[in-house]
Amino acid sequence: MTLNYQVLGNPGRDNALFVRVESGQSIARLLFDCGDGCLSSLPFSEIQAIDHLFFSHLHMDHIGGFDSFFRCTFNRDVKPNVIWGPAGTSAILHHRFQGFWWNLHADQSGTWSVNDVHPTHIEQFRYEISEAFSERHNEKQSEQCSPILDASDYSVSAIHLKHNGPCLGYVVREKPKWNVQTDRVAEMGLRPGPWMKDLKSDTSTPTIDIDGQTFDLAALRNDLLIESPGESIAYLTDFLLDDPTSEQLQEVLGDCTTVVCEAQYRDQDIDLAQRNFHTTTTSVSHLAARSGFGKLVLFHLSDRYTTDEWGEMLAECRMIFPNTVFPKNWSIEPQSNDI
Amino acid sequence: MTLNYQVLGNPGRDNALFVRVESGQSIARLLFDCGDGCLSSLPFSEIQAIDHLFFSHLHMDHIGGFDSFFRCTFNRDVKPNVIWGPAGTSAILHHRFQGFWWNLHADQSGTWSVNDVHPTHIEQFRYEISEAFSERHNEKQSEQCSPILDASDYSVSAIHLKHNGPCLGYVVREKPKWNVQTDRVAEMGLRPGPWMKDLKSDTSTPTIDIDGQTFDLAALRNDLLIESPGESIAYLTDFLLDDPTSEQLQEVLGDCTTVVCEAQYRDQDIDLAQRNFHTTTTSVSHLAARSGFGKLVLFHLSDRYTTDEWGEMLAECRMIFPNTVFPKNWSIEPQSNDI
Repeated sequence: MTLNYQVLGNPGRDNALFVRVESGQSIARLLFDCGDGCLSSLPFSEIQAIDHLFFSHLHMDHIGGFDSFFRCTFNRDVKPNVIWGPAGTSAILHHRFQGFWWNLHADQSGTWSVNDVHPTHIEQFRYEISEAFSERHNEKQSEQCSPILDASDYSVSAIHLKHNGPCLGYVVREKPKWNVQTDRVAEMGLRPGPWMKDLKSDTSTPTIDIDGQTFDLAALRNDLLIESPGESIAYLTDFLLDDPTSEQLQEVLGDCTTVVCEAQYRDQDIDLAQRNFHTTTTSVSHLAARSGFGKLVLFHLSDRYTTDEWGEMLAECRMIFPNTVFPKNWSIEPQSNDI
Repeated sequence: MTLNYQVLGNPGRDNALFVRVESGQSIARLLFDCGDGCLSSLPFSEIQAIDHLFFSHLHMDHIGGFDSFFRCTFNRDVKPNVIWGPAGTSAILHHRFQGFWWNLHADQSGTWSVNDVHPTHIEQFRYEISEAFSERHNEKQSEQCSPILDASDYSVSAIHLKHNGPCLGYVVREKPKWNVQTDRVAEMGLRPGPWMKDLKSDTSTPTIDIDGQTFDLAALRNDLLIESPGESIAYLTDFLLDDPTSEQLQEVLGDCTTVVCEAQYRDQDIDLAQRNFHTTTTSVSHLAARSGFGKLVLFHLSDRYTTDEWGEMLAECRMIFPNTVFPKNWSIEPQSNDI
């Protein structure tokens, strides 16, 4: 199982995050935000296969590419169409769904769910293309909101942030993996084979046969399997990084392999950052250092800075948290003497 | 005064038309439809200065780029923000305006007008950013709908078409120009000078002085000025070209310098064209030949055809109406032996 990600969009422009959680059996495709032009680097087939769209919030630079997404998916009926966002998302998406002239919809199928994620509960609404999206059907309310999504291979948790109103961060976590300890297999004199796959699968049989020998399954699992945590990636953008938020995030992000996080401003512009409910390079890299997560991927930098300054911003972060990078596809090099 | 136009978007993709009506004093910028990606070839300053946005209809491929437009203009208060479209436009645009999270709007100014153009009247609605666009204010109803817009330098007329529902074509006409006949000036022994500009301007003085001589203004105008019609451009897309529509268009388009017109299908696919309320190369070029307008610019071709076939489609049209071209920026060459 692997977790791949791609930061979409260019430096200083709208950004989004595309995550693929690949198990042997299936691929889940998750999109975080949908700014203008962000989908242009994804193949049509990938966009059309997106399972969940998660909004941090619905400011223009995060929802301005929704039409491009919706055009690929509006009448999709081969899998559920699911959107998540902070309180108010279902009402705004209802407007979005109705922002077209629908006159060929009556025979089309395709259902949309929009989930308003509140701190204490989730409200789910349903919309039908066959109704030209005219109705917002109150579907259900769930008190279970941590994680907000619990799939067989992965989970998604929401983090409630402040951006002059509600804004959500998200963490995608692969479920723990079971690996066979091959040195123990050798010690027991067993030959590797397809039985190792069976050992890792859920099965209701009490025993397992290996080369003519019968073993108690539970005992053999205990002897040979080791649990290793899955990878995890967090997506954080457009938020005020005050002390309570920093404490909250340190708690949540500690086990993350990768954190994709905005750093809109340089430290010298911290007043501006606070006034606009954004972070600075310094505050984000201090958060990284305190949380102890694996890698910090900086994105959503303000276009008030030049490309050279972006390089300097990366270098500023690396002074505090060395494993800080820009998204792979950005091709911005930091000043060489700063690394 | 000149009328410039640019077909936006690429062949087989969303298209739109940008028209600039330039008089000595001012430039009017008119946008017809707003498909996805269509604005990317216009400078930000041009988008931000668009005076009127006219929708043919609100199918996805005509409104999918609205967010890009609106992002440049949503809080514009230096000039009116005006949108036109067929019946139902004001309701759909109201949804579009509300398709964002507005939380910093209270102190912003900027008013939007949306005009629903019916065959017999126009309904105008007003929306305010200071209200987060929550209200659709019923502004006025006008029985005057031909032309729908009568500016000092130009007019815009709407043509009611059929596309499995209402769809509008548009004609932009420059107002007639007054030119000084310089040979008559010479015959009268007058020297060219700034007075020639005064002669063309509206003025309430009864006389005009030229090099010490006094002339009666009305008489001199009569002697020296000649009226020449302005240029005009029509925009026609997504419509069924049946006999009544053909007759209606022949009447309206006869004086047009340029007609930008869809030709979705080849003649061999006329059944498909009729079922989908579209035109064919042959029907459009016959319309051109019968109307006698100046130039036919083919656009909005179906992507079911290859680039080579597009070249053949142009050649098909030229057999019937020789002055048929693709938009300048499309760089599709017709098969050389067909020209």
